[in-house]
Amino acid sequence: MQRSLVACEAALDGFVPIDAPVGLGVAMRYAVLDGGKRLRPLLVLATCEAVDGDPEAAMRAACAVELIHAYSLVHDDMPCMDDDVLRRGKPTVHVQFGEAQAMLAGDAMQALAFEVLTPDSGVVPELQARLCALLARAAGHAGMAGGQAIDLASIGLLLDEATLQDMHRRKTGVLLQASVMMGAACGPTSATATAALAEYGAALGLAFQVVDDILDVTQDSEVLGKTAGKDQDANKPTYVSVLGLAPARELAQQLRCQAQQALRDSGLNNTAWLSLLADMVVERDN
Amino acid sequence: MQRSLVACEAALDGFVPIDAPVGLGVAMRYAVLDGGKRLRPLLVLATCEAVDGDPEAAMRAACAVELIHAYSLVHDDMPCMDDDVLRRGKPTVHVQFGEAQAMLAGDAMQALAFEVLTPDSGVVPELQARLCALLARAAGHAGMAGGQAIDLASIGLLLDEATLQDMHRRKTGVLLQASVMMGAACGPTSATATAALAEYGAALGLAFQVVDDILDVTQDSEVLGKTAGKDQDANKPTYVSVLGLAPARELAQQLRCQAQQALRDSGLNNTAWLSLLADMVVERDN
Repeated sequence: MQRSLVACEAALDGFVPIDAPVGLGVAMRYAVLDGGKRLRPLLVLATCEAVDGDPEAAMRAACAVELIHAYSLVHDDMPCMDDDVLRRGKPTVHVQFGEAQAMLAGDAMQALAFEVLTPDSGVVPELQARLCALLARAAGHAGMAGGQAIDLASIGLLLDEATLQDMHRRKTGVLLQASVMMGAACGPTSATATAALAEYGAALGLAFQVVDDILDVTQDSEVLGKTAGKDQDANKPTYVSVLGLAPARELAQQLRCQAQQALRDSGLNNTAWLSLLADMVVERDN
Repeated sequence: MQRSLVACEAALDGFVPIDAPVGLGVAMRYAVLDGGKRLRPLLVLATCEAVDGDPEAAMRAACAVELIHAYSLVHDDMPCMDDDVLRRGKPTVHVQFGEAQAMLAGDAMQALAFEVLTPDSGVVPELQARLCALLARAAGHAGMAGGQAIDLASIGLLLDEATLQDMHRRKTGVLLQASVMMGAACGPTSATATAALAEYGAALGLAFQVVDDILDVTQDSEVLGKTAGKDQDANKPTYVSVLGLAPARELAQQLRCQAQQALRDSGLNNTAWLSLLADMVVERDN
């Protein structure tokens, strides 16, 4: 996994431009490089390994999904959204480079994700199209951007668990699941394996958010690398506020079991790495 | 052309969601529908006709490029960028729906463009990948977003004509040219025709911006549907401020001739519509 992380950092470094006009490249590199757990890229690469897929395509998919994730953080942190100043242990992009540059850098990162998925050679065009389709749907109104819109509208409201789950499924779950499905698209998969991997991705995506909500109240900003207690201060509904801390912890464990059961049901042999990622998502401290 | 416009409006109406979460769909539809000259879609469709290409693919490409254009207007109008309140004769998206929703709507529109280009069926995957590649490169740091970054950095500066041209080539020219190249990708084209269409697109893209700069000082806001005199007020360099009004007008005519010469050099028979679009770009009054 460590080797894959190093390779992914190098690939991202190669994709994100240094020479984009007047400061745009610098802002993009600041937003993407040297930070982040790279969970989404690891999910792509681990799934590709499980299905014995095309590693070059998977590395491009890994970088593309991280670019989408990183752009969403840049835009979410802006004053008109969450207005946050700390991210991955550094000042947020708009604090460092100004709001206009932050908005442009985010916009350019989204475009770059689709550029990375459509090279002139090295990945068969059918797979390029499939990866673009998966990523666009996960990033857009039915996925991440739609989840953000629910998040915005829910501040100060009491949500029931079902609405909270729908918000989080879109906001973070769909892109995490898409990471798994993009990795799966890089190789041949049976219908059984595809369905099981989709279930793994859904359970892991939800577990990720439950744990995020737990960490928001149990960790300090230094460990998190972002402002702790933020959701509580903003009066946002979370799994902890809706369920309570102990039931939220229990739910995270249940979702881990569900994800790992899906791997056993997949009929795939090489799922040790995916199983480990489910452990990491639940046991992480930041 | 009128029939194509009507078909394009209907296609956009079908692609832009009504049911996206809490207001996001409404903001997206407000930003995309009922407004705009649809120059980019018309360029895609006219080029597709000139090369006798796949009309379904071209209609998707036409909608995708308009979605990218429309999202860029939403983000450019925001307070941290151009801070404009009027667009296509209506209040800008952030005035109508708030800044956060405007940013999200723009983000979701960019993702939707790539979703529109990658349907489950109806367009061959090779062409889907090619269209995504062309659009991503035109929208990103090397194209539109990069041009915006130069624009931001150039406020109050005296630019020479070469730097001004580079800024505009990226900011508007690259996406207009990409519209032509996406239309060309929908059919079979010779190397000669492709090169000639690229030249047509480059000349037309530049002419568009020169005329935009002229209209900014010669028309009032009501005719333009956006705030007139904006560039001058913001102390932005334009073709009029760098060259003067009469030489800018002459340049626009030269570029129209250049674009139409490229069409004659293309060896294509069915270019009347493309030629007419060059006339419209130069002779328009808004």
